[in-house]
This record gives sequence, C-alpha cells and structure tokens, in this order.
Amino acid sequence: MMKNITGGVCAPQGFTAAGVKAGIKKSGKEDVTIIFSEVPAAAAAMFTTNAMAAAPVLVSRQAVENGWLRAAVVNSGCANASTGEQGLADAKTMATVAAEALGVEFNDVLVASTGIIGVNLPMDKVTAGIKKASTALSKDGHSKAIKGIMTTDTFTKECAFEFDLDGTKARIAGIAKGAGMIHPNMATMLCFITTDAAISPAVLKAALQECVDVSFHMITVDGDTSTNDMISVMASGQATNKVIDSTKTSVYKEFVAALKEVCIYLAKQVVQDGEGATKFLEIQVKGAASFQDAKKAAMSVAKSPLVKTAFFGQDPNWGRILCAVGYSGAEVDQNKTTLALGGITIVKDGVDAKPDIHALQEVMKERDINVEIQLGQGTAQATVWTCDFSYEYVKINADYST
Amino acid sequence: MMKNITGGVCAPQGFTAAGVKAGIKKSGKEDVTIIFSEVPAAAAAMFTTNAMAAAPVLVSRQAVENGWLRAAVVNSGCANASTGEQGLADAKTMATVAAEALGVEFNDVLVASTGIIGVNLPMDKVTAGIKKASTALSKDGHSKAIKGIMTTDTFTKECAFEFDLDGTKARIAGIAKGAGMIHPNMATMLCFITTDAAISPAVLKAALQECVDVSFHMITVDGDTSTNDMISVMASGQATNKVIDSTKTSVYKEFVAALKEVCIYLAKQVVQDGEGATKFLEIQVKGAASFQDAKKAAMSVAKSPLVKTAFFGQDPNWGRILCAVGYSGAEVDQNKTTLALGGITIVKDGVDAKPDIHALQEVMKERDINVEIQLGQGTAQATVWTCDFSYEYVKINADYST
Repeated sequence: MMKNITGGVCAPQGFTAAGVKAGIKKSGKEDVTIIFSEVPAAAAAMFTTNAMAAAPVLVSRQAVENGWLRAAVVNSGCANASTGEQGLADAKTMATVAAEALGVEFNDVLVASTGIIGVNLPMDKVTAGIKKASTALSKDGHSKAIKGIMTTDTFTKECAFEFDLDGTKARIAGIAKGAGMIHPNMATMLCFITTDAAISPAVLKAALQECVDVSFHMITVDGDTSTNDMISVMASGQATNKVIDSTKTSVYKEFVAALKEVCIYLAKQVVQDGEGATKFLEIQVKGAASFQDAKKAAMSVAKSPLVKTAFFGQDPNWGRILCAVGYSGAEVDQNKTTLALGGITIVKDGVDAKPDIHALQEVMKERDINVEIQLGQGTAQATVWTCDFSYEYVKINADYST
Repeated sequence: MMKNITGGVCAPQGFTAAGVKAGIKKSGKEDVTIIFSEVPAAAAAMFTTNAMAAAPVLVSRQAVENGWLRAAVVNSGCANASTGEQGLADAKTMATVAAEALGVEFNDVLVASTGIIGVNLPMDKVTAGIKKASTALSKDGHSKAIKGIMTTDTFTKECAFEFDLDGTKARIAGIAKGAGMIHPNMATMLCFITTDAAISPAVLKAALQECVDVSFHMITVDGDTSTNDMISVMASGQATNKVIDSTKTSVYKEFVAALKEVCIYLAKQVVQDGEGATKFLEIQVKGAASFQDAKKAAMSVAKSPLVKTAFFGQDPNWGRILCAVGYSGAEVDQNKTTLALGGITIVKDGVDAKPDIHALQEVMKERDINVEIQLGQGTAQATVWTCDFSYEYVKINADYST
C-alpha cells in the first residue's frame, strides 16, 4: 500500500537537497539545484536517444556507468546543448565543482541542464551557484530544489510515498519538469527520483527501464524528443530491507510497483502541463496483436495534429482517430475496430455506431477524456497519455527567440 | 524542353473530361468528375498505405491491376470511408454505372471519393451525376473536372505540358486536390495525370513509382495519411512515339523527366494550399549516408510541430531544427552538422555560426524559405516540401463536425 508523505525528494532517508538563485535565469528565480545522498547510492539513469544529445547528457552517461552516485547537480535557464567542445568542458566543470564542494568524486555526480540551447553556460554564475547550493543542503530543501529545475512549467511536479518493502517501510519520491516545449528554444523532460530502498545497481537499472517503458515512454506532448531528456533514480539503501539483488523475487515486484507509481504520476503531470493544453487525453488500445502494436497505434493517435486539434475543438471526430490507427503500422482490420470516447461507443466494427450525440458532446466538454480503441487482433494493450493542440500552443511556440 | 500548354487533363490527345453538379456537396458546386480516354489507356496508380483504406481505394486497386483503364470517376463531398459492406457495394456501383454510361467494362474504371467520412454515399445523386457527366464529356471539360474533385482547396492545382519524346511531340497533364485536412473530417490527396505518350503498363508503373518517390512522397502538411489518397496516370498512346517498353532506354528517361515535372509541380501546389499555411518550406538535406537517411532527416524536420510553429512565428529557431534531425534516426554527428536558412549559414559544425541577425530576420519574413541541412556523412540528398502551423490551422481543424 502506497501512502502519501511530505518531504519530496528528501523524504527517503539519506537525502538532502537545495535550490538557489544563481542569476542564470532572467527571471531571477531558483536556477541551480543539488540533490545529495549522504551515502553512496545505487543509481540508474536513462537518457535521450536524440543523436544531438547535449553535453550534460554525455557527461552523465559516463557518471552513472558504474551504478553508483552521490549527487545530481542541475541548472535551468541554459541547456548547454549544441555548444561543442566548450559545452562539454563546461559540463565536466559543473561535475568537478560540485564534487569538490560536496567532498565526493567527479564520477559520483550526475549533471543536467535545461533552458535555451546554442548558448554557452555563464560558468562564473553556475560555479558560484553550485557552491552556494552545496552549503544550503537540508531536509527542507526539496521545495526550492524543484524550483531550480523548472523552466516554462506552470506548476511543480512532485510526489513522495511510503510503501511496504519486504515487511519493512521504505520511501520513494520524485520531481520532474515538463515536456512542454520551452520558449525560446526547446523541450527538456528531467526527472529525479530518490528512494531509501536497498537495491543493487543492476536490479535498479532493470526496474527503471521497466517502469519508464510504461510511463515516460508512453507520453507525448508534440512528438518532439529533446536533446537533454534525463530520468534518474538514486537508492540510498537506508531502509532496513535486505538488498534487492534479483528481478525474480516478490520484493522486486513490490519495489517496481512503487517506482511505477512514481513514474506514472510524474509522467502524467508532465502531460497535464503540456504547453497550451486544455485537455488531458488517455489513449487506451486494447485487443492488439502485441504490446508494440498497441503502443504504435496509441502513439499514432496521440501524436496526430488532426486528432489533437479536434479535441481542442471538442469535436468527436472519430474518422481522424481511425485514420491515425490505420497509418500507425499496427496490425488492424477496419471491420473489427471499435472506438469509445468517455465510455460511449462511437464506432463499432469499423462503422458509425450512431451514439447519442448529446451524451457525446458532454464527454467532449470534460478536461480529462478516455479514448478506448479495441483492435480485435489479440490480447495485448497499451495506454498513452497526451494533451490537445490549442491556439495557445501555436502562440507559445511561435514566439520570437531572437 | 517542357512547354506550358492549355487544356488541362484534356490537352493530351485522346482524353475528354467533365465535372457536374450532382447535389452531393452542400455548397451546390461541381461534385462528380469523369476523365475519359477514347482508347484503352495504359494505366498505373498508387494508393494510400493506410490500413483503414476507403472502399473506392479497394475497388480501384483491382481495376488498375491489369494495367489498363478507360476512365476515372470521382465524387467529392463524401469520402465513402469507414462505411463497411455498404460502402464497398456503393463504390462498385459507381464503377458499374460509369462503365455502362461510357460503354466500357467495369474493370476499366478507376473510382475515387473525397469528403466527409463515416457517411454512406447518396447513391441516387451519385448515379445521376455519373450519367450526367458521361454525356457532358468534352475537350473543354477539364476546368469543370477539376472543380468536381475539390473540397477545402482554396485554388485549383493543374498543369499541362508539351515535351519532346523520342524526337516527336507528346503531352502530359495533371490535376490534384489538396492534402489540407478537410472539414468536417479528414484529408484526401487525389491526383489524376493524363498523357498521350505510348508506354507499356509495366514501364508506366515503374515511372510513376520513381516520380512519386521524389514528389508526393516528399510532401507533408501535418504528417497524417488519409484513407482515400490516390495518384493515377493514364497514357492513351496517341502521340506518335514508339511504345516505351523498357526502363533502360533514353526515351524512358525523357518520359520520366516530364512525369516528374508534373508530379513535383502538383505536389508543391498541394503544400502551398496546406490549411492555414503562411509559409512554404523547402527542406533540403545534403551529405547524408543514404537517400533514406536524407529523407528521414528532412521529413522529421518537416513534421515537427515545434519547427512548424517557429516558422509561423518567423523565428529562426535552429535548436528545434537540429533537434528534429537528431531524433530522425538518420546517421548524424552534431559536430559535422551545418544549417542554412535562405542561404545564410546559422549553424556551422553543430554550433552557432553567429549570422547577421538583420539579414536572417529578412529571410524569415519571406513566404518561401529554403532550409538546407548538411550532415557531412556522405553524398546522398533529399528535398521535402512542407508548410508552417498557424493559428488558422488549429482553427480550421478544431471546428465542430457534429
């Protein structure tokens, strides 16, 4: 059983955090964050697959390689992406400065950046900010830490739970920043998860992959994948459970259930805050020949600008939804395809089910809408979350950067 | 040498056409079109790959199978898509009625529909319209024929050329309707090409594939692929050239050059008329490891909502362009990637080239903008055409259908 608790990423035993104002953001808000583990934490992370990966991603991939971390250091306001050799040197300097200030090794530090791309980091400000944050670490630091990773996010995305693990109590928590595409340049999705569960690095890595596959990999705002995306988890091991060292155990399943809840909660929050979003859409594809087919079909619907603008217009335009399923590459048969919006069947076996129009209009007025597509091909299913495309989306993203 | 001529799809010898008002469209405009070949025409066609293919697509695939056609019959105002068994029967009836009225065989008739989906054809009106059109066929019918295939198109898309073929004169012409997504339901791109070149069905098929690959397959308005898309070519053989029966000959190259010109002209016209478009973008990717890589990278940029809204906002947001190249799946190295907008280099070897901002702003104000991306991986290249995403795009596509 998962119980909501306070304390954010500092709720799990062994973690402190801080967020400080370093002057990188023009707004003057918090822009440097450190999340610190008092002991070596088993760690795993997943990074953008974009071939234009930013400098901090390159540095962090190396840092997490051995499965252990002590800290994550993050700046907002500048993504340190498309910055060439200088950018790489700057990302390394961030890790070095943080390691010295915290009394840990260079390779113990995960580095992340978010904000404008193509611009070099103002390293004097970044360095001073890291030093300041390292002296400000505390159990209360979580609320400022979350501010230090935000860019265009309109609300904070945070959760913390206590859960049963192998008969004892453990804690898990996370913060994330949005995939809303960021003025003036581009998207970054960052997520930092802490837990005091005792777990081996290899098993933690498997658990993270398993949970991200059904959470962050199942959301889309506009289909663009950022150069800076990163999701990490650090496990301090200070809960009293016996170290989880196999994926075949029931305790592993307990841990995965908790981690999944954190990942799905934060992933959905990211979509809720999609730029200009007026609708939150849950696209469920059932009866697929395989999970991959179900995901393909659901993602195709979720990414279609035609579908997204129709939901913005509160238009139950089922033709566009079937069309997107049709070109998804999933195995489908139009004569077996059924579609329901908000529980109202509007297409049955590929043709108009002549639903009650008044009831359907009521569904389309809701903020949260469930889209259920039954393919009739097998038993696999997948759920994807997305938002609509509004005037506001175009407005935000058409703004001048220069 | 290609010479512009008048007469539209009736310019090539052996063809007549008609467009009539059958009362299918609420607007009362022309909605049934026939393009007729006085003699058996070698024919080839390509259809949507959408698994939800509409009934007329299923019927037409069969009709063109043997490589010969006498006529194309088209209605607008109703797509006859997602209409089940009744829809299939209706599409067959359209071919049967046309064949009887024209004195040809059922299998000589290509059938196409465009308009609202999920609604059955008003067959009394369609049948009467086909009979009326068959008696109205003339060499002057091309201008009404083009009206009969239009839906939300804001201008007609037509071209006709005379060209040298094996030392004699031949003619080729085409009409198309837009990929703009259609109120109240979905997109359809239709294109009908006529020529009096003498060519075998097998070679015509190869030529069409070759030309579509660098024209209609290289355009995108919003990434959605319709259930009704169709491109066909009929060759009456009434020019005096010796029948082109091999793809290895120089006369084949002459024919392909002419067909390519028609296809690229019409494909670009379709993009120019993309819903709400304020910009026409030519995305050229050069120095790719393969054509497929070049196309992947160019299409990824062309489909990105972030890139498209940036161009609408006249914002030279190069980070979004590089980002879309990065997640395209093409082989890239950010340190070798160069980007130019309107001939102005703005990224050199992956970093800001510090271009003249004033000159760049002038480029962004143009309606037609060239985007050139050099990957530095090889010698392959590809060109894709697209438009921007505007408020108007969202408005048009958010309109109620119910």
